[in-house]
Amino acid sequence: MPHIRLDNDAPGILSLFAYRPETGRPLSELAEVLLRGPSTLTRGERELIAAYTSGLNECRFCNRSHAAFAAAQLDEGMPLVDQVCADPDSAPIPPKLKALLRIAAAVQRSGREVTDDDVAAARDAGATDLEIHDTVLIAAAFCMFNRYVDGLAALTPDDPEGYERAAELIVAGGYLAGLPQPAG
Amino acid sequence: MPHIRLDNDAPGILSLFAYRPETGRPLSELAEVLLRGPSTLTRGERELIAAYTSGLNECRFCNRSHAAFAAAQLDEGMPLVDQVCADPDSAPIPPKLKALLRIAAAVQRSGREVTDDDVAAARDAGATDLEIHDTVLIAAAFCMFNRYVDGLAALTPDDPEGYERAAELIVAGGYLAGLPQPAG
Repeated sequence: MPHIRLDNDAPGILSLFAYRPETGRPLSELAEVLLRGPSTLTRGERELIAAYTSGLNECRFCNRSHAAFAAAQLDEGMPLVDQVCADPDSAPIPPKLKALLRIAAAVQRSGREVTDDDVAAARDAGATDLEIHDTVLIAAAFCMFNRYVDGLAALTPDDPEGYERAAELIVAGGYLAGLPQPAG
Repeated sequence: MPHIRLDNDAPGILSLFAYRPETGRPLSELAEVLLRGPSTLTRGERELIAAYTSGLNECRFCNRSHAAFAAAQLDEGMPLVDQVCADPDSAPIPPKLKALLRIAAAVQRSGREVTDDDVAAARDAGATDLEIHDTVLIAAAFCMFNRYVDGLAALTPDDPEGYERAAELIVAGGYLAGLPQPAG
Protein backbone atom coordinates (compact mmCIF):
# COMPACT_ATOMS: atom_id res chain seq x y z
CA MET A 1 0.00 0.00 0.00
CA PRO A 2 1.35 3.46 -0.87
CA HIS A 3 2.68 5.54 2.05
CA ILE A 4 0.32 8.43 1.22
CA ARG A 5 -3.27 8.59 0.00
CA LEU A 6 -3.00 8.99 -3.77
CA ASP A 7 -6.75 8.77 -4.58
CA ASN A 8 -6.11 6.77 -7.74
CA ASP A 9 -5.09 3.19 -8.46
CA ALA A 10 -2.77 3.73 -11.43
CA PRO A 11 0.38 1.57 -11.29
CA GLY A 12 3.78 2.80 -10.08
CA ILE A 13 4.96 6.24 -11.10
CA LEU A 14 1.74 6.92 -13.03
CA SER A 15 -0.13 7.12 -9.72
CA LEU A 16 2.37 9.75 -8.54
CA PHE A 17 2.04 11.76 -11.77
CA ALA A 18 -1.75 11.70 -11.38
CA TYR A 19 -1.43 12.79 -7.72
CA ARG A 20 0.96 15.66 -8.47
CA PRO A 21 0.72 16.68 -12.17
CA GLU A 22 2.80 19.83 -11.55
CA THR A 23 5.88 17.65 -11.02
CA GLY A 24 4.66 14.84 -13.30
CA ARG A 25 4.96 17.05 -16.37
CA PRO A 26 8.67 18.02 -16.13
CA LEU A 27 9.52 14.46 -15.05
CA SER A 28 7.73 13.08 -18.12
CA GLU A 29 9.38 15.66 -20.37
CA LEU A 30 12.77 14.64 -19.02
CA ALA A 31 12.04 10.96 -19.78
CA GLU A 32 10.81 11.82 -23.28
CA VAL A 33 13.93 13.85 -24.20
CA LEU A 34 16.39 11.43 -22.62
CA LEU A 35 14.90 8.12 -23.70
CA ARG A 36 13.17 9.00 -26.98
CA GLY A 37 14.55 12.35 -28.24
CA PRO A 38 17.10 12.65 -31.06
CA SER A 39 20.25 10.68 -30.13
CA THR A 40 22.92 8.46 -31.63
CA LEU A 41 21.99 5.88 -28.99
CA THR A 42 18.93 3.89 -30.06
CA ARG A 43 15.76 4.01 -27.98
CA GLY A 44 16.32 0.35 -27.11
CA GLU A 45 19.87 1.06 -25.86
CA ARG A 46 18.69 3.97 -23.72
CA GLU A 47 15.85 1.93 -22.20
CA LEU A 48 18.41 -0.78 -21.47
CA ILE A 49 20.49 1.71 -19.44
CA ALA A 50 17.30 2.71 -17.59
CA ALA A 51 16.30 -0.91 -16.89
CA TYR A 52 19.84 -1.85 -15.80
CA THR A 53 20.12 1.12 -13.38
CA SER A 54 16.67 0.35 -11.95
CA GLY A 55 17.77 -3.26 -11.42
CA LEU A 56 20.84 -2.08 -9.49
CA ASN A 57 18.53 0.05 -7.33
CA GLU A 58 16.25 -2.98 -6.89
CA CYS A 59 13.25 -0.93 -8.01
CA ARG A 60 10.98 -3.64 -9.34
CA PHE A 61 8.39 -1.35 -10.95
CA CYS A 62 10.93 0.69 -12.96
CA ASN A 63 13.09 -2.33 -13.77
CA ARG A 64 10.16 -4.34 -15.15
CA SER A 65 8.70 -1.33 -16.98
CA HIS A 66 11.89 -0.26 -18.71
CA ALA A 67 12.94 -3.88 -19.35
CA ALA A 68 9.67 -4.26 -21.27
CA PHE A 69 10.24 -0.94 -23.08
CA ALA A 70 13.80 -2.00 -24.01
CA ALA A 71 12.71 -5.48 -25.14
CA ALA A 72 10.05 -3.97 -27.38
CA GLN A 73 12.67 -1.81 -29.11
CA LEU A 74 15.58 -4.27 -29.43
CA ASP A 75 15.71 -7.05 -32.06
CA GLU A 76 16.90 -9.56 -29.46
CA GLY A 77 13.97 -8.84 -27.11
CA MET A 78 13.66 -9.80 -23.45
CA PRO A 79 16.35 -12.56 -23.38
CA LEU A 80 19.00 -9.93 -24.11
CA VAL A 81 17.53 -7.48 -21.58
CA ASP A 82 17.59 -10.18 -18.90
CA GLN A 83 21.23 -11.02 -19.72
CA VAL A 84 22.26 -7.36 -19.55
CA CYS A 85 20.47 -6.79 -16.24
CA ALA A 86 22.12 -9.92 -14.78
CA ASP A 87 25.66 -9.26 -16.07
CA PRO A 88 26.35 -6.71 -18.81
CA ASP A 89 30.01 -7.75 -19.17
CA SER A 90 29.10 -11.25 -20.38
CA ALA A 91 26.07 -10.15 -22.46
CA PRO A 92 26.34 -10.18 -26.29
CA ILE A 93 26.31 -6.39 -26.71
CA PRO A 94 28.84 -4.06 -28.40
CA PRO A 95 31.88 -2.89 -26.37
CA LYS A 96 30.62 0.71 -26.47
CA LEU A 97 27.37 -0.22 -24.74
CA LYS A 98 29.26 -2.31 -22.17
CA ALA A 99 31.48 0.68 -21.38
CA LEU A 100 28.46 2.98 -21.04
CA LEU A 101 26.76 0.49 -18.70
CA ARG A 102 29.90 0.49 -16.55
CA ILE A 103 29.56 4.27 -16.27
CA ALA A 104 25.87 3.86 -15.37
CA ALA A 105 26.80 1.36 -12.63
CA ALA A 106 29.31 3.84 -11.19
CA VAL A 107 26.72 6.65 -11.22
CA GLN A 108 24.25 4.36 -9.44
CA ARG A 109 26.72 4.01 -6.54
CA SER A 110 27.68 7.72 -6.53
CA GLY A 111 28.55 10.40 -9.08
CA ARG A 112 32.00 10.53 -7.51
CA GLU A 113 32.58 6.89 -8.50
CA VAL A 114 32.87 7.73 -12.21
CA THR A 115 36.60 7.70 -13.00
CA ASP A 116 38.70 9.16 -15.81
CA ASP A 117 39.43 5.54 -16.78
CA ASP A 118 35.70 4.71 -17.11
CA VAL A 119 35.25 7.71 -19.41
CA ALA A 120 38.42 6.96 -21.42
CA ALA A 121 37.29 3.34 -21.90
CA ALA A 122 33.91 4.50 -23.24
CA ARG A 123 35.61 6.94 -25.58
CA ASP A 124 38.06 4.24 -26.77
CA ALA A 125 35.05 2.03 -27.54
CA GLY A 126 33.63 4.80 -29.74
CA ALA A 127 31.31 6.70 -27.37
CA THR A 128 30.87 10.42 -28.03
CA ASP A 129 30.84 13.06 -25.31
CA LEU A 130 27.10 13.48 -25.76
CA GLU A 131 26.53 9.73 -25.38
CA ILE A 132 28.59 9.77 -22.18
CA HIS A 133 26.62 12.79 -20.94
CA ASP A 134 23.28 11.15 -21.68
CA THR A 135 24.33 7.88 -20.05
CA VAL A 136 25.30 9.70 -16.85
CA LEU A 137 22.02 11.61 -16.85
CA ILE A 138 19.87 8.53 -17.61
CA ALA A 139 21.52 6.62 -14.74
CA ALA A 140 21.19 9.65 -12.43
CA ALA A 141 17.56 10.21 -13.43
CA PHE A 142 16.68 6.59 -12.62
CA CYS A 143 18.33 6.99 -9.21
CA MET A 144 15.60 9.63 -8.79
CA PHE A 145 12.67 7.79 -10.41
CA ASN A 146 13.49 4.57 -8.47
CA ARG A 147 13.62 6.43 -5.14
CA TYR A 148 10.44 8.34 -5.96
CA VAL A 149 8.46 5.16 -6.70
CA ASP A 150 9.80 3.08 -3.81
CA GLY A 151 10.08 5.97 -1.34
CA LEU A 152 6.30 6.38 -1.58
CA ALA A 153 5.68 2.62 -1.93
CA ALA A 154 3.75 3.12 -5.16
CA LEU A 155 1.79 0.12 -6.40
CA THR A 156 3.94 -2.44 -8.27
CA PRO A 157 1.72 -4.84 -10.24
CA ASP A 158 2.80 -8.49 -10.59
CA ASP A 159 0.92 -9.13 -13.85
CA PRO A 160 3.49 -9.26 -16.71
CA GLU A 161 0.86 -8.31 -19.28
CA GLY A 162 0.47 -4.86 -17.76
CA TYR A 163 4.13 -4.08 -18.46
CA GLU A 164 3.79 -5.35 -22.03
CA ARG A 165 0.72 -3.18 -22.62
CA ALA A 166 2.60 -0.19 -21.18
CA ALA A 167 5.47 -0.94 -23.58
CA GLU A 168 3.09 -0.81 -26.56
CA LEU A 169 1.79 2.57 -25.42
CA ILE A 170 5.27 4.02 -24.82
CA VAL A 171 6.63 2.75 -28.14
CA ALA A 172 3.63 4.16 -30.00
CA GLY A 173 3.09 7.45 -28.17
CA GLY A 174 5.97 8.21 -25.83
CA TYR A 175 6.05 9.53 -22.29
CA LEU A 176 3.90 12.61 -22.81
CA ALA A 177 0.79 10.94 -24.28
CA GLY A 178 -2.06 10.85 -21.84
CA LEU A 179 -0.27 12.92 -19.23
CA PRO A 180 -2.73 14.49 -16.78
CA GLN A 181 -3.10 18.24 -17.18
CA PRO A 182 -2.01 20.49 -14.29
CA ALA A 183 -4.98 21.61 -12.20
CA GLY A 184 -6.13 25.22 -12.45
CA MET B 1 38.29 19.13 -15.04
CA PRO B 2 34.94 17.92 -16.40
CA HIS B 3 34.90 14.39 -17.88
CA ILE B 4 33.54 15.68 -21.21
CA ARG B 5 34.20 18.81 -23.27
CA LEU B 6 31.43 21.23 -22.31
CA ASP B 7 32.68 24.25 -24.30
CA ASN B 8 31.67 26.67 -21.55
CA ASP B 9 33.05 27.56 -18.14
CA ALA B 10 29.83 28.01 -16.18
CA PRO B 11 29.93 26.52 -12.68
CA GLY B 12 28.45 23.13 -11.74
CA ILE B 13 25.10 22.13 -13.16
CA LEU B 14 24.82 25.39 -15.13
CA SER B 15 27.60 24.17 -17.42
CA LEU B 16 25.59 20.97 -18.05
CA PHE B 17 22.39 22.94 -18.76
CA ALA B 18 24.32 25.10 -21.27
CA TYR B 19 25.81 21.96 -22.89
CA ARG B 20 22.46 20.16 -23.19
CA PRO B 21 19.57 22.67 -23.03
CA GLU B 22 17.06 20.01 -24.12
CA THR B 23 17.45 18.27 -20.76
CA GLY B 24 18.33 21.48 -18.87
CA ARG B 25 14.83 22.84 -19.37
CA PRO B 26 12.75 20.03 -17.76
CA LEU B 27 15.36 19.71 -14.99
CA SER B 28 15.06 23.45 -14.25
CA GLU B 29 11.27 23.27 -14.41
CA LEU B 30 11.32 20.43 -11.90
CA ALA B 31 13.50 22.48 -9.52
CA GLU B 32 11.25 25.53 -9.93
CA VAL B 33 8.02 23.62 -9.11
CA LEU B 34 9.51 21.59 -6.27
CA LEU B 35 11.58 24.25 -4.54
CA ARG B 36 9.68 27.45 -5.33
CA GLY B 37 6.14 26.53 -6.49
CA PRO B 38 3.05 26.82 -4.27
CA SER B 39 3.55 24.71 -1.13
CA THR B 40 2.86 24.70 2.60
CA LEU B 41 6.60 24.13 3.10
CA THR B 42 8.50 27.41 2.87
CA ARG B 43 11.12 27.91 0.17
CA GLY B 44 13.76 27.97 2.88
CA GLU B 45 12.58 24.63 4.29
CA ARG B 46 12.59 23.03 0.85
CA GLU B 47 16.08 24.32 0.05
CA LEU B 48 17.18 22.93 3.42
CA ILE B 49 15.98 19.44 2.37
CA ALA B 50 17.91 19.88 -0.90
CA ALA B 51 21.09 21.04 0.85
CA TYR B 52 20.87 18.27 3.45
CA THR B 53 20.39 15.51 0.83
CA SER B 54 23.27 16.92 -1.23
CA GLY B 55 25.45 16.86 1.88
CA LEU B 56 24.60 13.18 2.46
CA ASN B 57 25.61 12.50 -1.16
CA GLU B 58 28.80 14.51 -0.56
CA CYS B 59 28.06 16.65 -3.62
CA ARG B 60 29.95 19.81 -2.77
CA PHE B 61 28.56 21.99 -5.57
CA CYS B 62 24.89 21.22 -4.85
CA ASN B 63 25.37 21.27 -1.08
CA ARG B 64 27.03 24.70 -1.11
CA SER B 65 24.58 26.10 -3.66
CA HIS B 66 21.41 24.99 -1.89
CA ALA B 67 22.86 25.78 1.54
CA ALA B 68 23.29 29.36 0.27
CA PHE B 69 19.77 29.37 -1.21
CA ALA B 70 18.34 28.04 2.08
CA ALA B 71 20.31 30.52 4.20
CA ALA B 72 19.05 33.40 2.05
CA GLN B 73 15.44 32.37 2.69
CA LEU B 74 15.56 31.42 6.38
CA ASP B 75 15.61 34.01 9.18
CA GLU B 76 18.35 32.09 11.01
CA GLY B 77 20.64 32.06 7.97
CA MET B 78 23.73 29.94 7.41
CA PRO B 79 24.39 28.95 11.07
CA LEU B 80 21.10 27.02 11.09
CA VAL B 81 21.78 25.47 7.67
CA ASP B 82 25.19 24.28 8.87
CA GLN B 83 23.64 22.78 12.01
CA VAL B 84 20.95 20.97 10.02
CA CYS B 85 23.46 19.57 7.52
CA ALA B 86 25.68 18.36 10.38
CA ASP B 87 22.92 16.83 12.54
CA PRO B 88 19.25 17.62 11.95
CA ASP B 89 18.11 15.85 15.14
CA SER B 90 19.96 18.30 17.39
CA ALA B 91 19.24 21.41 15.28
CA PRO B 92 16.71 23.98 16.58
CA ILE B 93 14.02 23.22 13.98
CA PRO B 94 10.38 22.15 14.39
CA PRO B 95 9.61 18.42 14.92
CA LYS B 96 7.80 18.28 11.56
CA LEU B 97 10.89 19.38 9.65
CA LYS B 98 13.05 16.93 11.62
CA ALA B 99 10.69 14.09 10.67
CA LEU B 100 10.73 15.14 7.02
CA LEU B 101 14.54 15.27 7.04
CA ARG B 102 14.58 11.71 8.42
CA ILE B 103 12.48 10.66 5.42
CA ALA B 104 14.90 12.49 3.11
CA ALA B 105 17.84 10.65 4.69
CA ALA B 106 16.10 7.30 4.12
CA VAL B 107 15.39 8.20 0.46
CA GLN B 108 19.04 9.14 0.00
CA ARG B 109 20.05 5.59 0.98
CA SER B 110 17.28 3.92 -1.05
CA GLY B 111 13.58 4.42 -1.69
CA ARG B 112 13.01 1.05 -0.01
CA GLU B 113 14.45 2.43 3.23
CA VAL B 114 11.43 4.67 3.89
CA THR B 115 9.35 2.85 6.51
CA ASP B 116 5.72 3.10 7.60
CA ASP B 117 7.09 4.34 10.94
CA ASP B 118 9.01 7.20 9.26
CA VAL B 119 5.84 8.29 7.49
CA ALA B 120 3.68 7.91 10.62
CA ALA B 121 6.17 10.00 12.62
CA ALA B 122 6.03 12.78 10.03
CA ARG B 123 2.24 12.68 10.05
CA ASP B 124 2.15 12.73 13.87
CA ALA B 125 4.36 15.83 13.76
CA GLY B 126 1.81 17.53 11.51
CA ALA B 127 3.09 16.79 7.99
CA THR B 128 0.49 16.48 5.23
CA ASP B 129 0.55 13.80 2.55
CA LEU B 130 1.60 16.41 -0.01
CA GLU B 131 4.47 17.56 2.21
CA ILE B 132 5.62 13.94 2.57
CA HIS B 133 5.31 13.47 -1.21
CA ASP B 134 7.33 16.59 -1.96
CA THR B 135 10.00 15.69 0.60
CA VAL B 136 10.47 12.26 -1.01
CA LEU B 137 10.66 13.83 -4.46
CA ILE B 138 13.06 16.61 -3.41
CA ALA B 139 15.41 14.05 -1.83
CA ALA B 140 15.08 11.73 -4.86
CA ALA B 141 15.66 14.62 -7.29
CA PHE B 142 18.85 15.63 -5.48
CA CYS B 143 20.06 12.02 -5.70
CA MET B 144 19.82 12.72 -9.45
CA PHE B 145 21.22 16.27 -9.53
CA ASN B 146 24.15 15.28 -7.28
CA ARG B 147 25.05 12.28 -9.49
CA TYR B 148 24.66 14.37 -12.65
CA VAL B 149 27.07 17.06 -11.40
CA ASP B 150 29.68 14.72 -9.90
CA GLY B 151 29.29 11.96 -12.51
CA LEU B 152 30.48 14.44 -15.14
CA ALA B 153 32.92 16.15 -12.74
CA ALA B 154 31.37 19.55 -13.40
CA LEU B 155 33.35 22.54 -12.15
CA THR B 156 32.89 23.22 -8.41
CA PRO B 157 34.10 26.74 -7.54
CA ASP B 158 35.76 27.33 -4.14
CA ASP B 159 34.91 31.03 -3.96
CA PRO B 160 32.06 31.46 -1.39
CA GLU B 161 30.95 34.72 -3.03
CA GLY B 162 29.90 32.87 -6.18
CA TYR B 163 27.36 30.85 -4.18
CA GLU B 164 26.06 33.99 -2.46
CA ARG B 165 25.62 35.75 -5.82
CA ALA B 166 23.81 32.66 -7.17
CA ALA B 167 21.51 32.76 -4.11
CA GLU B 168 20.57 36.38 -4.86
CA LEU B 169 19.69 35.44 -8.45
CA ILE B 170 17.64 32.37 -7.43
CA VAL B 171 15.76 34.25 -4.69
CA ALA B 172 14.96 37.09 -7.09
CA GLY B 173 14.26 35.20 -10.31
CA GLY B 174 14.03 31.47 -9.70
CA TYR B 175 15.40 28.49 -11.59
CA LEU B 176 14.03 29.38 -15.03
CA ALA B 177 15.49 32.88 -15.39
CA GLY B 178 18.33 32.98 -17.84
CA LEU B 179 17.91 29.38 -18.91
CA PRO B 180 19.53 28.75 -22.30
CA GLN B 181 17.04 28.23 -25.13
CA PRO B 182 16.93 24.83 -26.86
CA ALA B 183 18.85 24.84 -30.14
CA GLY B 184 16.92 24.75 -33.43
